[in-house]
Amino acid sequence: MRVVLVAGTTETAEVPGISAAGADPELMRHTPGADLDIVAHGELVLAPVVPVSPSGCPTPAVVTRAARELLGFDAVCVDAGIAGRTGAPALAVGDAPGADVRERAAVPGAEETYERARELGAALPDDRLVIGETIPGGTTTALGVLRALGEEPSVSSSLPENPLELKREVVAEGLDESGLAPGDAAGDPVRAVAAVGDPVLAAVAGLTAGAVESGTRVTLAGGTQLAAAAALVRHAGVDAPLTLATTSFVAADDSAEIAGLADSLDVELVVTDPEFEAVDHPAMDAYVAGEAKEGVGMGGALSLVEESSASMVELRERIVDVYDRLLAGRDHPALSGSTTEASNAAESGR
Amino acid sequence: MRVVLVAGTTETAEVPGISAAGADPELMRHTPGADLDIVAHGELVLAPVVPVSPSGCPTPAVVTRAARELLGFDAVCVDAGIAGRTGAPALAVGDAPGADVRERAAVPGAEETYERARELGAALPDDRLVIGETIPGGTTTALGVLRALGEEPSVSSSLPENPLELKREVVAEGLDESGLAPGDAAGDPVRAVAAVGDPVLAAVAGLTAGAVESGTRVTLAGGTQLAAAAALVRHAGVDAPLTLATTSFVAADDSAEIAGLADSLDVELVVTDPEFEAVDHPAMDAYVAGEAKEGVGMGGALSLVEESSASMVELRERIVDVYDRLLAGRDHPALSGSTTEASNAAESGR
Repeated sequence: MRVVLVAGTTETAEVPGISAAGADPELMRHTPGADLDIVAHGELVLAPVVPVSPSGCPTPAVVTRAARELLGFDAVCVDAGIAGRTGAPALAVGDAPGADVRERAAVPGAEETYERARELGAALPDDRLVIGETIPGGTTTALGVLRALGEEPSVSSSLPENPLELKREVVAEGLDESGLAPGDAAGDPVRAVAAVGDPVLAAVAGLTAGAVESGTRVTLAGGTQLAAAAALVRHAGVDAPLTLATTSFVAADDSAEIAGLADSLDVELVVTDPEFEAVDHPAMDAYVAGEAKEGVGMGGALSLVEESSASMVELRERIVDVYDRLLAGRDHPALSGSTTEASNAAESGR
Repeated sequence: MRVVLVAGTTETAEVPGISAAGADPELMRHTPGADLDIVAHGELVLAPVVPVSPSGCPTPAVVTRAARELLGFDAVCVDAGIAGRTGAPALAVGDAPGADVRERAAVPGAEETYERARELGAALPDDRLVIGETIPGGTTTALGVLRALGEEPSVSSSLPENPLELKREVVAEGLDESGLAPGDAAGDPVRAVAAVGDPVLAAVAGLTAGAVESGTRVTLAGGTQLAAAAALVRHAGVDAPLTLATTSFVAADDSAEIAGLADSLDVELVVTDPEFEAVDHPAMDAYVAGEAKEGVGMGGALSLVEESSASMVELRERIVDVYDRLLAGRDHPALSGSTTEASNAAESGR
């Protein structure tokens, strides 16, 4: 089993108010590289800043890293076209960030990225892949792809009040600019991604198609973005069993309607609740408040904890460790009362 | 502790008779990517062929992979400009293969590669790095760099009869073409690499300089190529302690005079003997015969086994496992008498 994190960028994230995967649009471009650093190394290596939402909630990479430290699973990073820097080794399947979906072509290299990822998915030696994503703005492109394919159009958000109306407007403009009506790209996943998707969707869909075709079991680890990838795989004619592992926070989000979407795509849905309400900690409070929900493979990481002999209590303790280590000594309003412990962790080089 | 494998290519390898890191020059371009696949995954993923010498000796990546499976250490791949494909995630510090050293500029991007690697070496969170290389033709470029720096000019070879005269001629021509006399690049490592080195030397030297400057202990894992990297680091003005961990096969090679070279560079030499003469197996016989000696971090991997509680008996058993898995079912003259075991290993997906 191996966790695969697919990282990329879309200029769609720069639409004001559309994403919270970073404190502001300038910092958001560093989010994918930082997420890879955190999952691969447990700290920043070449990325400049720990991603936090505008209100200070740290990236779900903290949860995935905590699960990785607890369970010891391998993680491999796939670069579908990131803009910022990372110290995480990666397999490249794409060279360029995606354009704003309102451009005529959102992902000019969609076909090449899909094919390179598909070949990689078929070649990786693992019996099971758990595939997650990190791409700010990705729920809007997911909405775009679902609409282009003619599938259920609800999507989740990293923002407390889902700016669904804004996403719908952006997607409608993108489809229009690409000369597509909803459903026009049914059966043609590469066309859907090229017109209104993002490079990560091309890569996740390709990896998944290649993996299942070679007999590898795939768990898509995430919310609506991974559901959109599942839709792309289905529209590529792949009818092998697929699992979507997401968080209880996505499942509880009415606007996402993830269960209905999974059902319509014949995808098994696994929902895991990390019971964050049991503690009061800045790494977890935002999820309980409905502000943060999913990302960076978090839903899959939680399901791996659930499958293991480890407990959610241990996971939450490890989340606190990772959080303290990442934010130790940084000027961050959410950090309080744990300076000594955090300094020790940093000095131990972990 | 982390093992770092730096992979790259130099067109110097295409000089007829200069390298045995591949069955022929066309196959040799796939050697670095295949070595990374083998160390990262224990099998080929995207590389097309297992590297063997013209006489059928498999790549020392087999030994490093075996040590990794035995000890469980992390390995990270650094791409300094490989030509072939690999399924191993990598950190890129260079974009282009090196030219033939007889060209005016052997590594036009030497400075950028050195600086990117140096930044990476300083940023990696490990307390110790064990750095190896895979680049066919690399002993000739090592000779070039040592001569440009004015250091001891003997070098080892992956060929049974070291074509030292040929290497000296090629290097002399390279220095001449670059307008350098021996010693002219003393104190200027980037100039030495740019004129007559290869991208891997730039990357290993940069990684090492950055790592030791940030307090990370560095073991250079290899023979004369890694000694040349040590020379570059010394000529960059870095006088921190350095260790060179090589095999008993390099140490026994008179033409390499590795002990004298290490001594003149104030580098601690660690020599490890895997006692391959204790067994009769095609993965190990060529070393005993003096045909194969080192590469892909083998000397460092052996020293890690020596430092651990594992035994060389266990390592040799694991080498047979890895060899059988890699060459199972392939039409390879060296494979005999282990078909069933090898098939089982392949089927188990390991």
